[in-house]
Amino acid sequence: MGSHCRDEVSNKQIIFQDYVTGFPKETDMVSKTSTIRLNVPQGSNAVLVKNLYLSCDPYMRSRMKKSLVKSYVPSFTPGLPMAGYGVAKVLDSGFAALKEGDLVWGITGWEEYSLITEPETLFKINHADVPLSYYTGLLGMAGMTAYAGFYEVCCPKRGEFVFVSAASGAVGQLVGQFAKLMGCYVVGSAGSTEKVDLLKNKFGFDDAFNYKEEHDLNVVLKRYFPEGIDIYFENVGGTMLDAALLKMRLNGHIAVCGMISQYNLEKPDGIYHLANVITKRIHIKGFLVLDHYHLYPKFLESTLKYIKEGKIVYLEDIAEGLDSAPAALIGLFTGHNVGKQVVVVARE
Amino acid sequence: MGSHCRDEVSNKQIIFQDYVTGFPKETDMVSKTSTIRLNVPQGSNAVLVKNLYLSCDPYMRSRMKKSLVKSYVPSFTPGLPMAGYGVAKVLDSGFAALKEGDLVWGITGWEEYSLITEPETLFKINHADVPLSYYTGLLGMAGMTAYAGFYEVCCPKRGEFVFVSAASGAVGQLVGQFAKLMGCYVVGSAGSTEKVDLLKNKFGFDDAFNYKEEHDLNVVLKRYFPEGIDIYFENVGGTMLDAALLKMRLNGHIAVCGMISQYNLEKPDGIYHLANVITKRIHIKGFLVLDHYHLYPKFLESTLKYIKEGKIVYLEDIAEGLDSAPAALIGLFTGHNVGKQVVVVARE
Ligand SMILES: NC(=O)c1ccc[n+]([C@@H]2O[C@H](COP(=O)([O-])OP(=O)(O)OC[C@H]3O[C@@H](n4cnc5c(N)ncnc54)[C@H](OP(=O)(O)O)[C@@H]3O)[C@@H](O)[C@H]2O)c1
Ligand SMILES: NC(=O)c1ccc[n+]([C@@H]2O[C@H](COP(=O)([O-])OP(=O)(O)OC[C@H]3O[C@@H](n4cnc5c(N)ncnc54)[C@H](OP(=O)(O)O)[C@@H]3O)[C@@H](O)[C@H]2O)c1
Repeated sequence: MGSHCRDEVSNKQIIFQDYVTGFPKETDMVSKTSTIRLNVPQGSNAVLVKNLYLSCDPYMRSRMKKSLVKSYVPSFTPGLPMAGYGVAKVLDSGFAALKEGDLVWGITGWEEYSLITEPETLFKINHADVPLSYYTGLLGMAGMTAYAGFYEVCCPKRGEFVFVSAASGAVGQLVGQFAKLMGCYVVGSAGSTEKVDLLKNKFGFDDAFNYKEEHDLNVVLKRYFPEGIDIYFENVGGTMLDAALLKMRLNGHIAVCGMISQYNLEKPDGIYHLANVITKRIHIKGFLVLDHYHLYPKFLESTLKYIKEGKIVYLEDIAEGLDSAPAALIGLFTGHNVGKQVVVVARE
Repeated sequence: MGSHCRDEVSNKQIIFQDYVTGFPKETDMVSKTSTIRLNVPQGSNAVLVKNLYLSCDPYMRSRMKKSLVKSYVPSFTPGLPMAGYGVAKVLDSGFAALKEGDLVWGITGWEEYSLITEPETLFKINHADVPLSYYTGLLGMAGMTAYAGFYEVCCPKRGEFVFVSAASGAVGQLVGQFAKLMGCYVVGSAGSTEKVDLLKNKFGFDDAFNYKEEHDLNVVLKRYFPEGIDIYFENVGGTMLDAALLKMRLNGHIAVCGMISQYNLEKPDGIYHLANVITKRIHIKGFLVLDHYHLYPKFLESTLKYIKEGKIVYLEDIAEGLDSAPAALIGLFTGHNVGKQVVVVARE
């Protein structure tokens, strides 16, 4: 028994039921209560954390299917808790770089308490003078994605025409703000009038439209980009990508961050306008945030500054309690979330 | 009348009949004989040339349709001669940089004699110790395309796995040889047993296959690239592109040179595997040779050296006489050509 031996406590968990095909449902996950000892096994370098905020992210859909090939994110295991990014407080640590009371963000379990056996994957939170939940999104993985995707992949220049899809979401709202800070003209697409309003009036996009109200995306992109698109920050894929290809300008960049419209399809949509990449010399570049974490300190410093100066704002959609997590996660795929989807497990 | 005033001579021409939809036919072009004066109008800076070799190029298909938008290559005009790259001899010149007897390559007419009114677009041939016809391909536009596409767009590294489609053609045979010179492993696809044999035994590809004999391109690419593809030099598009996307390796490059399988379709084939660009961080980059002609002197110097050292070989498919030009051109779209398709109008 370790010196920090504590009593066993009850631990509510969200258990992954079974591999999913098509749209995920709330019942693909189930709440269960087990127990956990709030200490780290002797000799282990693990940390024992209390989970505070959990992040719902579209990529988690890929972990809900049985992966046939080796993937950068392994499938969830049926019968075990879901896992994802979160903010947590260290209760006990066998890892030299972390101690009791430290706040961290990184991959944790969808449960009240987690034993994290790869503590080197955690980021220690040194700036707690912003909402802690920001480390699930703005100051965490989604923010880093927007930063790396925009500055490293899009090759942006002042005055360029930028289009962002899923623009009101965790990543999109930031991409738009980074683009405005760079002096670009920015239009976003989103799935409701409320979101369009937020894009224009809260996040400072130059314009925005509700793609669900449009019959012909080619026509709508022509309307919003009479001179064409220099940069398309791609979050949705499918017909939106096809329409954007038609409207790209010479030497345009498409940064492929995600294709959420395709994640639940058995057969993806066909893309028909790729020949445009030749005549327009388009760059298409896929990227994953995990290649870019060496930039995290720089990103954090500049983004914290922007937040404090009020130059960047961030909208979160907060679901209360672990039991709300399954609905919050599947809501990403119908656009239920307005802003970054967070689940509060505990506030401290 | 200029001092070089000469008699009018007869001038056989290949006339473009009318805009084409679907596959082009021989009858979309017709032979006609008119007359031409073999001198340049006084005060003009034009040059009057005798055409020797003409080039048949897939991009010419795009000039055979009525272009609805401004294009980098304008449509042919019905009733006027076809035009394309060729090698010619200057008979009279109002242009200071060229004089009677000079050999040039560049855009000329599909006719025996042409009056070229934009002589600044012509390249003067200074090295005539190689077959002159090489300036329609190897030492002309196709060669420059292979050079720029491979060295500037593919970001090649020694030891990488390279796939070239339409590999025995004007561009492809060179891309494969450049890739071998760089120390890559190179596989090509082509449309006949004869071409596959040429790829392996004449051009030095490591391996090659006949795509027309394969039912499942995914299976065939798995067979030839068990470890995946680092560089796909894309000449054909459609199902081959879709299969290549599945087999690309991490950080792979797709240089999109052309999509010949799509040029005659009313509706292009759908591409379904683009989500691979995210997880594999693939670069897709379209390019046009016309952005790269500043590299021509460097390209010419190194390629002439390779030819003389026997490190690069080149295969041409020679059609005799202007009347054979229409069939030679449309043959590109059924793979009739074996190597670079050239039409001989006159040998000197
Ligand atoms: N490459 C990376 O490393 C990386 C990292 C993080 C995220 N991503 C990707 O970035 C994208 C955005 O992620 P996020 O965290 O910012 O999520 P999010 O935008 O906060 O939530 C997803 C949003 O996608 C939209 N959506 C859902 N289904 C759609 C459909 N069929 N067509 C169009 N839009 C649809 C919904 O908004 P509407 O109401 O507007 O439809 C929904 O709110 C996702 O594709 C994600 O996979 C990639
Ligand atoms: N981006 C640029 O600036 C630029 C410049 C020059 C050329 N290009 C492009 O480069 C490509 C090759 O041009 P090239 O001059 O070297 O022509 P080429 O290879 O000499 O001739 C075309 C070849 O394409 C193949 N082909 C025809 N239809 C096909 C189909 N449906 N599916 C698969 N293959 C087909 C045929 O060979 P098989 O027997 O193997 O089928 C045919 O011999 C073309 O796409 C062209 O448009 C681009």
